Amino acid sequence: MTSIEVNPDLQKERSTCTFNIEELTNLLDTGVEHTAKRRALEDKIFNLKELKDVVPEEFLSHKDKYENAIRKAVILHTILQSNGSIKNISDNLDKSNFRSTSHSIFKDGSPFLLHFSMFVPTIVGQGDDEQKNYWLEKALKMEIIGTYAQTELGHGTFIRGLETEATYDENTEEFIINSPTPTSYKWWPGGLGHSSNYCIVMAQLKIKGKSHGMKPFVVQIRDEETHMPMPGVKVGEIGAKLAFNTVNNGFLGFDNVRIPRRHMLMRFSQVLKDGTFKSSSNPKLAYGTMVMVRVTIVNTACTLLSKAATIAIRYSAVRHQSQLKPNKPEPQILDYVTQQHKLFISIATSHAYMFCSYWLWDLFTNYRNEQNDGNFGRLPELHALTCVLKVISSKDCTALVERCRLSCGGHGFMLSSNLPQLYGLSTAACTYEGENTVLLLQTARALVKAWDQASQGIALNPTMAYLADRTPAGPWNSSLDGIIKAFQKVSVGKLSSSVSSFHEYAKSGLSMEDAWNKASVQLIGAAEAYGRAVVLSVYKAEVERYSKIVSSSLQTVLSDLLEMYIIYMALETTGDLLLYTQLSEKEVKALQRRYEDLLEKIRPNAVGLVDAFDYRDEVLHSTLGSYDGFAYEHLMEEAMKSPLNGEPVNQSFHKYVKPLMKGKI
Amino acid sequence: MTSIEVNPDLQKERSTCTFNIEELTNLLDTGVEHTAKRRALEDKIFNLKELKDVVPEEFLSHKDKYENAIRKAVILHTILQSNGSIKNISDNLDKSNFRSTSHSIFKDGSPFLLHFSMFVPTIVGQGDDEQKNYWLEKALKMEIIGTYAQTELGHGTFIRGLETEATYDENTEEFIINSPTPTSYKWWPGGLGHSSNYCIVMAQLKIKGKSHGMKPFVVQIRDEETHMPMPGVKVGEIGAKLAFNTVNNGFLGFDNVRIPRRHMLMRFSQVLKDGTFKSSSNPKLAYGTMVMVRVTIVNTACTLLSKAATIAIRYSAVRHQSQLKPNKPEPQILDYVTQQHKLFISIATSHAYMFCSYWLWDLFTNYRNEQNDGNFGRLPELHALTCVLKVISSKDCTALVERCRLSCGGHGFMLSSNLPQLYGLSTAACTYEGENTVLLLQTARALVKAWDQASQGIALNPTMAYLADRTPAGPWNSSLDGIIKAFQKVSVGKLSSSVSSFHEYAKSGLSMEDAWNKASVQLIGAAEAYGRAVVLSVYKAEVERYSKIVSSSLQTVLSDLLEMYIIYMALETTGDLLLYTQLSEKEVKALQRRYEDLLEKIRPNAVGLVDAFDYRDEVLHSTLGSYDGFAYEHLMEEAMKSPLNGEPVNQSFHKYVKPLMKGKI
Repeated sequence: MTSIEVNPDLQKERSTCTFNIEELTNLLDTGVEHTAKRRALEDKIFNLKELKDVVPEEFLSHKDKYENAIRKAVILHTILQSNGSIKNISDNLDKSNFRSTSHSIFKDGSPFLLHFSMFVPTIVGQGDDEQKNYWLEKALKMEIIGTYAQTELGHGTFIRGLETEATYDENTEEFIINSPTPTSYKWWPGGLGHSSNYCIVMAQLKIKGKSHGMKPFVVQIRDEETHMPMPGVKVGEIGAKLAFNTVNNGFLGFDNVRIPRRHMLMRFSQVLKDGTFKSSSNPKLAYGTMVMVRVTIVNTACTLLSKAATIAIRYSAVRHQSQLKPNKPEPQILDYVTQQHKLFISIATSHAYMFCSYWLWDLFTNYRNEQNDGNFGRLPELHALTCVLKVISSKDCTALVERCRLSCGGHGFMLSSNLPQLYGLSTAACTYEGENTVLLLQTARALVKAWDQASQGIALNPTMAYLADRTPAGPWNSSLDGIIKAFQKVSVGKLSSSVSSFHEYAKSGLSMEDAWNKASVQLIGAAEAYGRAVVLSVYKAEVERYSKIVSSSLQTVLSDLLEMYIIYMALETTGDLLLYTQLSEKEVKALQRRYEDLLEKIRPNAVGLVDAFDYRDEVLHSTLGSYDGFAYEHLMEEAMKSPLNGEPVNQSFHKYVKPLMKGKI
Repeated sequence: MTSIEVNPDLQKERSTCTFNIEELTNLLDTGVEHTAKRRALEDKIFNLKELKDVVPEEFLSHKDKYENAIRKAVILHTILQSNGSIKNISDNLDKSNFRSTSHSIFKDGSPFLLHFSMFVPTIVGQGDDEQKNYWLEKALKMEIIGTYAQTELGHGTFIRGLETEATYDENTEEFIINSPTPTSYKWWPGGLGHSSNYCIVMAQLKIKGKSHGMKPFVVQIRDEETHMPMPGVKVGEIGAKLAFNTVNNGFLGFDNVRIPRRHMLMRFSQVLKDGTFKSSSNPKLAYGTMVMVRVTIVNTACTLLSKAATIAIRYSAVRHQSQLKPNKPEPQILDYVTQQHKLFISIATSHAYMFCSYWLWDLFTNYRNEQNDGNFGRLPELHALTCVLKVISSKDCTALVERCRLSCGGHGFMLSSNLPQLYGLSTAACTYEGENTVLLLQTARALVKAWDQASQGIALNPTMAYLADRTPAGPWNSSLDGIIKAFQKVSVGKLSSSVSSFHEYAKSGLSMEDAWNKASVQLIGAAEAYGRAVVLSVYKAEVERYSKIVSSSLQTVLSDLLEMYIIYMALETTGDLLLYTQLSEKEVKALQRRYEDLLEKIRPNAVGLVDAFDYRDEVLHSTLGSYDGFAYEHLMEEAMKSPLNGEPVNQSFHKYVKPLMKGKI
């Protein structure tokens, strides 16, 4: 970083930091070479004048926001292409790319987001070789721009309920794509509104009156020359949202649109010319993409949180308020223990889920190799695991992003802080790619099944193995391993308790389905408890693994954060720990004391820890969180960019207000 | 309501409701005559074509949103004036007006909001008779438009830190208003940006080098004819925010602006011509307005929540998804117990805080009468009480508004649902009018003082009286009174525990201030526990009081909600209840079972209960929550209003995308 003038408060924090910030950055990037690569691309993109907004996006109309985003998306794409980042897009799906920041030129998302994150991967994953050859070349060169349409107005997570139909006509060798009801309109796909001319449409395959389930079809939705909607295609955007407003989410309806037979992606099942349906491989293979998407959501969640934490902690280091002691200067608000309590957990949670996402990625990669050898053994566990980790990472990180925002007081309400937008981007993950409650219920089903298997003596997969140990909790052990063990006991206790409730309801005369429904509040609690137990042990194992390769000063800081995280979680869970372990009132007090000591220990490193996330100002987009710490100056500069401030008197004064004041209305 | 076509799902819900919806509406309005009055005004305002937006606000630019809001504010004002609602504005401050909805023509707030809610009341409250006569007439006729400026860029809740100065010059008999630093700029006042020409400025009064604290000054900031900023006045708007974007929040700086001596509001203190400072009355009198504002916040919080609950519950009654039982139609999602768990608590919480706000209003009115007789005895209690109730009502209602939003899945992310905006309006209350953590610490101070007083045998005020009872909790009693008593024991336990931690830290060598700081996480927990205990007993007492005047069918419904609320809170607080009462694992399970039974009991009345809040569609502004229940149709209608959908192909295609697709960039 070139030398810039920095707020003395931040200078002080940085100079007293006890560890090497760069070392932690390299660790988070999974290697010094990845830090270098990331920064090289950042230099290329963020120094480009054409990509900087003159009028901040939040002042523009919905339509102007879109047009500006398209402009930037096209520029960004040409840079990435010239940089060689596009050609090998399928190779890019690696954990070392999790921290790539080029998309941060969009505060609110790119209209081409789904082209790269869903259209291309679906062709790669579900097209046969000929189809891949045909579509991929066009897509990677952006001769066509695509998106992926699954969710409909009337149905989301419940995929079987989707209504769009693809009926095969063997006479013409075509599929007829149709939207039979208003609720069957596709709704939500990014880039669908006005940006894409092709779309992978998930539709119910029907052949000779028989349904064959949801299949992917490549459908041209706009003319390649004029961009006008194709005949029979109704397409547009769905309107303004809490976030992702530049993503151009759209709706799509079909009035019996015909497409060639070979536009169905045929890697996993085929429709022959005569209408014969063939399903050639294990349907479990199709789960892979979904599992992978959920791994990346865990990473996205903590990325958003780490940005919010960076903003809130830097601001808390430069904001002075009130008095801790009479006749002393106003302290940095970061010196208030309540503020530390609000904020430090966000650093630790960012680490916890970041490390978890790397771990999960490796697990997924291993599984993919096993799968290629025909071994699907870990799929149920991996499914339950990615479901619950998607849920608790999105839930925790969203809550903490908001806590960071609120910790900045009123100024966190300003869009120029970027905290409200980070909240919007974060909370979206609670409902997209599987609504959180539905996913928890799926995890619960897997757990109940594992519970029964364990009762029958069947061995469980590694992350669930502890469910087989039904011995009561031993004496309270306040070591980190002891606390993690206690969380496993909570998980066992809650699962056991919800299973008995389920059985009791069934015995009392309810059908199995009604009994399950009535116990479902408890069942989702049990699913979440499983997720907590996993995160705690993975976070600890990863820190221990890293400890062997980092300096002792960094090791200390990582361990402090880990310990604080575990104790914080225990204090949040006292109700369950008191029920299912031998935790006592005295031990609760000791944990509280230990927590308060840890906040004090972490305080001097707080700014260093968020600096280590290494977000450039162009990535943070925040008046409150800039590297130089001149929050007030930036707040005023940004306010002055409001077009309302471009003229001293707004026209509405003469038109409306003056006549009112003069009694002339 | 005129007969309209209604979604059969909602029709069914309404026809099976077990109580009289209108009776509950009248109760919530505090009387049948208030319902009638409210509806009469609604008919007048919401039928006016000029007040309906053609293009929904969320598609407009920040500037266009403002101009549209000013246009509507002027129309609304003339209606209210012709209706006689303005003339007696100070009489309007009554709990029977809490449910007035005319401001709902603004989805995101009126630019004249602070004229009526702060400028006028401050003149009424702090002006002497001559000043009131002079300013009120102008203000009520809207010959001048005012706002109230206290918060600065650098200081909010810590009022003593405010930097704006008002220095008296006895030679010219003027005050010199000055902003000595960039952080002393006023920041946040509604209407300040471009809408007001007068402003009450809170500034440090300085006379002959001596400070006399913060006083209110009426300052002209814009010319009455041209609306240009007055010489030495720097004024503008602060930019875009998470909500309140049409409120026109502004900044304001002064370069030695001179105002006449009599522009200081002099009811409580005076500056004589020669510079003599006189403080004529009890400074405690000035607290009144602040206390009153916090009472109204409690009411605002539950109003926003009741709107969100209306939207989410109606939507959950018309949305069908997934399968509870094989081969059965998709059920209404309101039939999922997890969905009931998400939603019914919002109805009960709306009741709890609505009834609390009425109770608090009466308490405040009584206090005001006592105060007029020179009796300030209940002020510390009232201060602690309004602080903590402001905090927990804003915290709970914000969390539940968001829970309602998330319960609508992806569609709750649409601005056309109005749920994101309700969230923005709601969460703002967590930081405005006293940041929540700061207020909790103030409550904690009052509690610690009361704790010590009780230890010395001094009698405590009614809501704190239970703090004197230090006997251990008796056997668990699962009656509602028993559970409320248990919450009081939790409050005592947490206060006792945090006081000991504070003392231990002090004994261990920390200064009193550092010890307080280090124990502050526990102290705010104790403050919140006090608030919980109060809300539970007030809610119960009010329901019992109402039970005597309502039909038995309504009585049953109110009691079910109350019981569900109390048990829900107990299940949320098991950690503390297990620590501080004799609650056992068996009893926790019994509570859980009772809670699940109550959800089932409330289910048939859910839609009736939200109908009873009686929000017209023009008040709800929601595609998902309209009275007719045609959620999908309204979603599509609103999307079609997006200007992006006004043309089939956006210009950005020809300008940017086509060249990219053709490889010509």
